[in-house]
Amino acid sequence: MTNLRTPKGTIDYNQKSSLILEQIIDKSTLIFKKHGASPIRTPVFELKEILLNKYGDDSKLIFDLKDQGGDLCSLRYDLTVPFARYLAQNGIQKIKRYQCGEVFRRDQPSITKGRFREFLQCDFDIAGSYKDMVADAEVIKIVDECLDSFNIGKYFVKINHRQILGAILTLSGLESDIHATICSTIDKIDKMRIEDIRLELKNKGCSAEGIGIIERYIKINGEIEEITNLTKDPIYDISCGKKGIDDLILLHEYLKCFNADINVKYDLSLARGTDYYTGIIFEASYDSHSVGAVIGGGRYDNLVDGFARDKGRKGMQVPCVGFSVGVMRIYTLLSSQQNIEVFNIVAFVGSSGGCYLKERLCITNLLWEHNIPAETYYNESMHFKKQATFCQKNGIRFLIILGEDEINKNVVQICDNTAGTRNTVAHDDVVSFIKKTIQ
Amino acid sequence: MTNLRTPKGTIDYNQKSSLILEQIIDKSTLIFKKHGASPIRTPVFELKEILLNKYGDDSKLIFDLKDQGGDLCSLRYDLTVPFARYLAQNGIQKIKRYQCGEVFRRDQPSITKGRFREFLQCDFDIAGSYKDMVADAEVIKIVDECLDSFNIGKYFVKINHRQILGAILTLSGLESDIHATICSTIDKIDKMRIEDIRLELKNKGCSAEGIGIIERYIKINGEIEEITNLTKDPIYDISCGKKGIDDLILLHEYLKCFNADINVKYDLSLARGTDYYTGIIFEASYDSHSVGAVIGGGRYDNLVDGFARDKGRKGMQVPCVGFSVGVMRIYTLLSSQQNIEVFNIVAFVGSSGGCYLKERLCITNLLWEHNIPAETYYNESMHFKKQATFCQKNGIRFLIILGEDEINKNVVQICDNTAGTRNTVAHDDVVSFIKKTIQ
Repeated sequence: MTNLRTPKGTIDYNQKSSLILEQIIDKSTLIFKKHGASPIRTPVFELKEILLNKYGDDSKLIFDLKDQGGDLCSLRYDLTVPFARYLAQNGIQKIKRYQCGEVFRRDQPSITKGRFREFLQCDFDIAGSYKDMVADAEVIKIVDECLDSFNIGKYFVKINHRQILGAILTLSGLESDIHATICSTIDKIDKMRIEDIRLELKNKGCSAEGIGIIERYIKINGEIEEITNLTKDPIYDISCGKKGIDDLILLHEYLKCFNADINVKYDLSLARGTDYYTGIIFEASYDSHSVGAVIGGGRYDNLVDGFARDKGRKGMQVPCVGFSVGVMRIYTLLSSQQNIEVFNIVAFVGSSGGCYLKERLCITNLLWEHNIPAETYYNESMHFKKQATFCQKNGIRFLIILGEDEINKNVVQICDNTAGTRNTVAHDDVVSFIKKTIQ
Repeated sequence: MTNLRTPKGTIDYNQKSSLILEQIIDKSTLIFKKHGASPIRTPVFELKEILLNKYGDDSKLIFDLKDQGGDLCSLRYDLTVPFARYLAQNGIQKIKRYQCGEVFRRDQPSITKGRFREFLQCDFDIAGSYKDMVADAEVIKIVDECLDSFNIGKYFVKINHRQILGAILTLSGLESDIHATICSTIDKIDKMRIEDIRLELKNKGCSAEGIGIIERYIKINGEIEEITNLTKDPIYDISCGKKGIDDLILLHEYLKCFNADINVKYDLSLARGTDYYTGIIFEASYDSHSVGAVIGGGRYDNLVDGFARDKGRKGMQVPCVGFSVGVMRIYTLLSSQQNIEVFNIVAFVGSSGGCYLKERLCITNLLWEHNIPAETYYNESMHFKKQATFCQKNGIRFLIILGEDEINKNVVQICDNTAGTRNTVAHDDVVSFIKKTIQ
């Protein structure tokens, strides 16, 4: 007996849901295009080795394909690593691209929190060497535009910098080779109790004093002044700390030019789980909604270089910054409030006093050939009253009626449900009648 | 050393290619919507058991996920079986839906023939109980509209009927339980030598006389008259033969109403590989192109019922008919001829005699906030001549120039590369100036 369900952590989207997803994707890509981006497409699965050592502690969540001979492959975990592989493989130094597609994680699913094993991401990234923090500011600007366009309410963008985190961990006496895994732990701050965070940090080699230092810094959270204050803190004496702090101050200057400084918060507890970030990191959420971050991203300057070096080339520094729109989480927020019309038919071709199938098919075809969305009924018969009700229920404006009389005279009756009128129209004039009326 | 490539049989699509794919999908879905369809989305992978016994000899081409604990899953092989699962699971009796997405087959790939291991399909299907052959005719009509919209040249739609094939195999003395696997063999007629087909038929239990009968019938190929002639043939005495022949004759009547009878051919050698077809089957190709069928489909009346029965329910007859657009094959045909603009920026904000970064960012932001696609340069400096060349090369109409003088006076210079003009415009009038000019 077959299990009639989708695999754990995945769901089907019905017509209304799919249209909402399409809307989220369309709104995002329209904004991306306004900023000069164009799409690329990479495969749904990658060679397993491409995804290795990119996702910190979360690498265990990668879906592998079965070894059926040939390449060992895994389903993509995000769209960022495939993008970096694409740049390195093709020697591309500069691009603004977007990509929308499913990504896969063997996480413990939670439908109400918008956490799935298969979910849609809409990614935007800028690759290329530019003046410090300008591309980063444009990326935050685009995040702001996306959040605004979804129209779900007040939102904020939390920003931090991996090099500030690095300086904190250095101050805590931790060697740089374990900074990535420590960031994975700090990243769980919103999901785990502080006691468990402390325990995990201890198990990863952090001293009691070090944990104290980490806790003190990651409480810093607020306006840009909180960051400016750090220029007088010991953390500013560590070179990567200085770099991170200067970066955020400069970023904020540019955000003001872009009118995108309003909804920004600087939060040193933000860590982001993946290994590859090297500069700013950020997450965006809507106020008073429990699905968590709906957008996440950051700067990753060494990911492409890593691939290029692996290939045995001399290396290829392609600094990148970008983000993912968590389409499903935005969907979770939107689907409760949004009303969307699933059915978009303009004219229904009906009959009175008989079936007249072929005559109806000919009139319906006439409408299709002039790009008027139309349907007729395919049953043996349909009571006239039922046809009228069907149109009303589905918001179909025109009911076109064929009867014996009309057929003999080469005309139809057109009921306009909006205007409440009924007209006799010659076959040749049906299209122009409807087009004129709906203009 | 990491292999910098995509898995065997998969490719990346660069910006131009992705835009062509988007175009194919957009054209198809626009037609589907005109016919009253709306989208649904099912997951990229399904429970392995859902895909079992659906694809005849080709089931060996299914990609399985590795057993990492939990559900045993496979990548979807098409969008049809997941659609039928969706209908059975949700008890849906009637729907017109479309779905576009990647499907996966561990076939021997051939990039030049447009055969990949991961490829995009755009599916349209009508589910529901209707008067015979009307929904089938609408489906062929939509195939015709799609092929026409891609604008690649002359095309034709080959049509056959599974029940006519059944009658042929019955005449050849074959039991019905091996009809599906025999159809898999007949399906290879375009790819294998006739000697090898004969051998495979023999190995599957077909007598020499049976093979002769099969060969005689599958040569029938041409206009509807070829089918009408069969009403005088022994095949018409077999009940499923009569049903198939009557169906095709009726279909052709409706196709005439839809003005979709012109590019249709009836071809008894067409078999289609998958098990689930029960009525008409069809494939569409462009003349003088070697990528093979670009659209394929048919009627499958028992697939939903099979799932419903499996579930232990009483069963649930949901007749379905539909097709898949082979997006990649159409892409292969289009990409050689199509020229597409990757870059769609309207205005480039440059500078003269200095960098003026913040001032440029503010003007660029002004354009973005009024939905004018715009960019500025993010490098330390960019020579004015290079800015002009960049605009010309990328078809950017407006070059907006900021210099010391302009900044002091709160104005910009706007060069219109189309009109060949240069105007001084106040900051407040930049947006209206550009919007007026491009109208």
